[in-house]
This record gives sequence, structure tokens and C-alpha cells, in this order.
Amino acid sequence: MLYLIGLGLGDAKDITVKGLEAVRRCSRVYLEAYTSVLTVGKEALEEFYGRKLILADREEVEQEADNIFKDADVTDVAFLVVGDPFGATTHSDLILRATKLGIPYQVIHNASIMNAVGCCGLQLYKFGETVSIVFWTDTWRPESFFDKVKKNRENGMHTLCLLGNKSPAGWYIKVKEQSLENLIRGRKIYEPPRYMSVNQAAQQLLEIVQNQRARGEEPAITEETLCVGLARVGAEDQKIAAGTLEQMCTVRLGEPLHSLVITGGNLHPLEMEMLSLFSIPEPQNTDGL
Amino acid sequence: MLYLIGLGLGDAKDITVKGLEAVRRCSRVYLEAYTSVLTVGKEALEEFYGRKLILADREEVEQEADNIFKDADVTDVAFLVVGDPFGATTHSDLILRATKLGIPYQVIHNASIMNAVGCCGLQLYKFGETVSIVFWTDTWRPESFFDKVKKNRENGMHTLCLLGNKSPAGWYIKVKEQSLENLIRGRKIYEPPRYMSVNQAAQQLLEIVQNQRARGEEPAITEETLCVGLARVGAEDQKIAAGTLEQMCTVRLGEPLHSLVITGGNLHPLEMEMLSLFSIPEPQNTDGL
Repeated sequence: MLYLIGLGLGDAKDITVKGLEAVRRCSRVYLEAYTSVLTVGKEALEEFYGRKLILADREEVEQEADNIFKDADVTDVAFLVVGDPFGATTHSDLILRATKLGIPYQVIHNASIMNAVGCCGLQLYKFGETVSIVFWTDTWRPESFFDKVKKNRENGMHTLCLLGNKSPAGWYIKVKEQSLENLIRGRKIYEPPRYMSVNQAAQQLLEIVQNQRARGEEPAITEETLCVGLARVGAEDQKIAAGTLEQMCTVRLGEPLHSLVITGGNLHPLEMEMLSLFSIPEPQNTDGL
Repeated sequence: MLYLIGLGLGDAKDITVKGLEAVRRCSRVYLEAYTSVLTVGKEALEEFYGRKLILADREEVEQEADNIFKDADVTDVAFLVVGDPFGATTHSDLILRATKLGIPYQVIHNASIMNAVGCCGLQLYKFGETVSIVFWTDTWRPESFFDKVKKNRENGMHTLCLLGNKSPAGWYIKVKEQSLENLIRGRKIYEPPRYMSVNQAAQQLLEIVQNQRARGEEPAITEETLCVGLARVGAEDQKIAAGTLEQMCTVRLGEPLHSLVITGGNLHPLEMEMLSLFSIPEPQNTDGL
């Protein structure tokens, strides 16, 4: 049996009891390395689970899945994923390959940012298509995701923006990326992980807004659009801040991982009241005027 | 501290380790009764958690929240919710009232149908607004949710349909409802829980399609629209069936709870391949022709 087990969003103890029992029963336990972005590291997980974890990075999962599947028809193998196995990135590929090999699988679900984002008070059923905001480079500054934000807002829907690169936890992070130079030279040297902050995402959004105005278009959002910044959702020190897109450029949310929600306009009174719990305080007038 | 703890979707062991520790630490533990629709009952939860559970039905939560909040500023109280506390129904109301009373709260997330639905292979970020399909009566046959399905399909988005009445697990169930007669007479006699099946939901949808055609409108979906029926997601005997809306009228998915997805049209090849794992077999030609 191949178990795909979601680890949830916080730390080692966010695994379900069912998931933990499966981990302890399996003969091999893989941890998807490029998504291992809980607030704790591999060692803390190993200590709590009482099992050695085999790191499986993106390449291994894609190219050497045979190792993962080895004997999985006669023994139990676990594949651990931060968040839920069907969060922002599905693990369909792994399931399809297992099925072709005649290996049965079982999914043990958990929270992902795709549902935990509801903790800010915005109603989950009113979220439209999820978008990802990726790191711009000097030469690659995609704006196409902005059309989806526009469509969502036209329909009164909130937009969850995942920041950085893809991960099944629901955040998009940039881990194990090669620099362009190393990629060209075929050197497997990787950049340190980069996490996009709400500030960076908001600044990119504002730049798109300004570009659209310069082209004479009317942008779907403005500096004043109500947004919600979320950091470390599910962890004890999670932070939520509600305010304008402009405020999102400077709000301090601390360590990764961050997500950003662009609200859909007409909010339910209960949504407004919840957001008010997280509203960014007005700057203090410190000179006594 | 008030803990809002998601129980996930399957049985007693789908609680997270963190959630279980909180339950065992709390002086009072409430179970939201109108959503207690795991595959196991209250007694099984009590045995596994090692704690007595106080049933809190919808009336109690709405009208007698003071009992729940009593001493919660000096002791720990848990409020258990099937699915995630911020699934289809948020518990914003409880949080807002706790905050006003100066009671700190912590949310312990879990899977809800809003993210676990990804197990069918449809990509979660491509889901549009979630709709609910409620039980029709002779005199009340709402079709308004159908506009949202239409909007989702126009934008190539999947629609998750929650069936029956509201529950934070993400399913909409009909529990503790009074009959019209008992309601009018002020008698607190409740109907037995009713769960809507995928068959019933599909039949209502087809009736709307036929009504629209009769009015000369072109319906957003037809008998041939690709749908996915899901039953008992997260439980060991979960069932998924992919097929046309017409096939959804007769597919056998067994015990509650059921959910239905109306696909958004253009599917990614990986989505198609996943759905093919769950496709309803063609009827056997038994007369040898």
C-alpha cells in the first residue's frame, strides 16, 4: 500500500492520528523535500514520528519514482506531503503511476492553505480561482495571472494568491532552483530557498496596476483594494493583517510562509467584522499634533 | 483558551495529534451536534478521546453560547467541528463573541471537503464558487444557485456542490429540522436527519436544465456534462464516480455523505487521466449481441 499523507501546516503534531499510525507502520517513509516547509525541520519530524525519513526532492519524485514504488505492493510505503496531498499541487502523477503498477494507495487528508485560509474570516465558498504570484526577474515579468484576479472580482469572489513557487502545502515556494548560469552549464548547484513576502507580492501587484494605467486601461484593483496578508497559517505564531493593497507593501508579517488574499469587493457583514479583528492600526501620530 | 478543533472527515483517528492533546487538556469539550456526521458516532469519539463530549446543537451554539464561554478565560474549553472550523460554514460568530468577552482562541485546522475534494483528481485551484443544492419541497424549488454554476463554467471552473443543508464539514445536511407543521405549532419535534444523495442532486439539476429549455433558454450544462460524484470522502470506504450528469442520476455510491462536482469544461490531461480511474463502467451487454 502506498500512503499519501498530509502533514498539515504547523509542526510535527499537525499530522493526524491516522497518519501517524500509518507512518509508524510503513517500511519506508519519504518526505517530499521541496515542500518541507513546516515551522520545524526533518529532524524534528523524525524524532516525533520515531522514524527515519527519506528526503525525496522534486527530481527524485519525477524521475526515480521506481525507488518509491519498490515492493509497495507487498509492503507499506508512506509519502509525506506538507499540507494536503491534493492541495495546490496534486499528487495525481504519483497515484497514476502507482495504479499502473497495480499498487493500491490510500490518501490521508489534512489541512492545506486552500481551506485553512478561511481563518481570516472570509467565506471559503466565495473564493474564485487561486492564482500564483511568482518571482519576477529583469526579463520575465508575467502579468497574465492578473486577468484571473479581475474575473474573480467581477464575480465578487476573493482571490487567494500563493506566493513564490509551487508546493502542495498550497504555498508557492522557490526551493532547489538552479541559477540560469548553473542551469546552462548543467551544474546541479542550487540557490538557497527564497520565499516571497506579502510585501513583495503587493509591490508587484501595484506595479501591474500602474502599468495598466499607463496603457490607459482601468485596473481591476487599486491601491485602496482591501487585502489580507497571512503568515505561517496553522502555526502558533501565525499572523493575519487586513488592510489596503498599499498597506500590504509595508506590513510586517515576519518569517515565511506568506499568502495574500485580494478580497472580492462586496463583503458579508460577518466577513467585515472578522477582518476588523486583524486590521492594521493607523500609524501613530508621534509628534503630538 | 477556546480551542476550535477540526475533526477531519473520516473517523475518530482523523483528529490531529495537536487537536487530540488539546481535547485531553480541556476542562469541557463540546461537539457540534448538527455537524457530527463522521462515519462514527459520539460514543466512539468519546472512547477514543477518553473524554465526555457535550453535544452542542445549532440552537445552543446560537443562543446559549454563554455556557460554552463560561470560565474560558481561566480554563481551556474545546469546541469540536467535523471537517475544518472554517470549512463551508465558518465559525466566525463564535470567534467574534469570544473576542468581545476577552477570551483568547486558537484554531486547530483539519481537512474539509473544500480541499479533500481534490482526491478525485480535479485541480483545486480551478474550482470556482461553491454552491449548495438544497432539498426541494412542493412549493419551494430554488434554481438561483444554477447561475453560479453557469458563471463557473463560462470561466472554465469546476463547481463543488454541497448537498442538503449546511455543515462546517463542507457537506450540507438536514439534521434537526422541524416539519412545517411542528414549526408553526411551536413544537420542538425534529425530523430524522436527511442526507441528499448524488442521485437526487443530479435529478434536480436535470429538472432545472429541462425547465430552462422549456423557457427557450440554453442551459449551462446538459445531460452529457462531465460530473464527479463523491461519497464518504476521507473514510476507508470512500467512493468516487466520474460520468455524465445523466449517469449521476443512477450511480450507486452508498451511504452518506455525498458531494457532487460539475466539471468546468476544458480539463487538463492529468485531470482526465485521474477521472478515468473513477469512470463509471459502460452497462454490460448481457444478451450476447
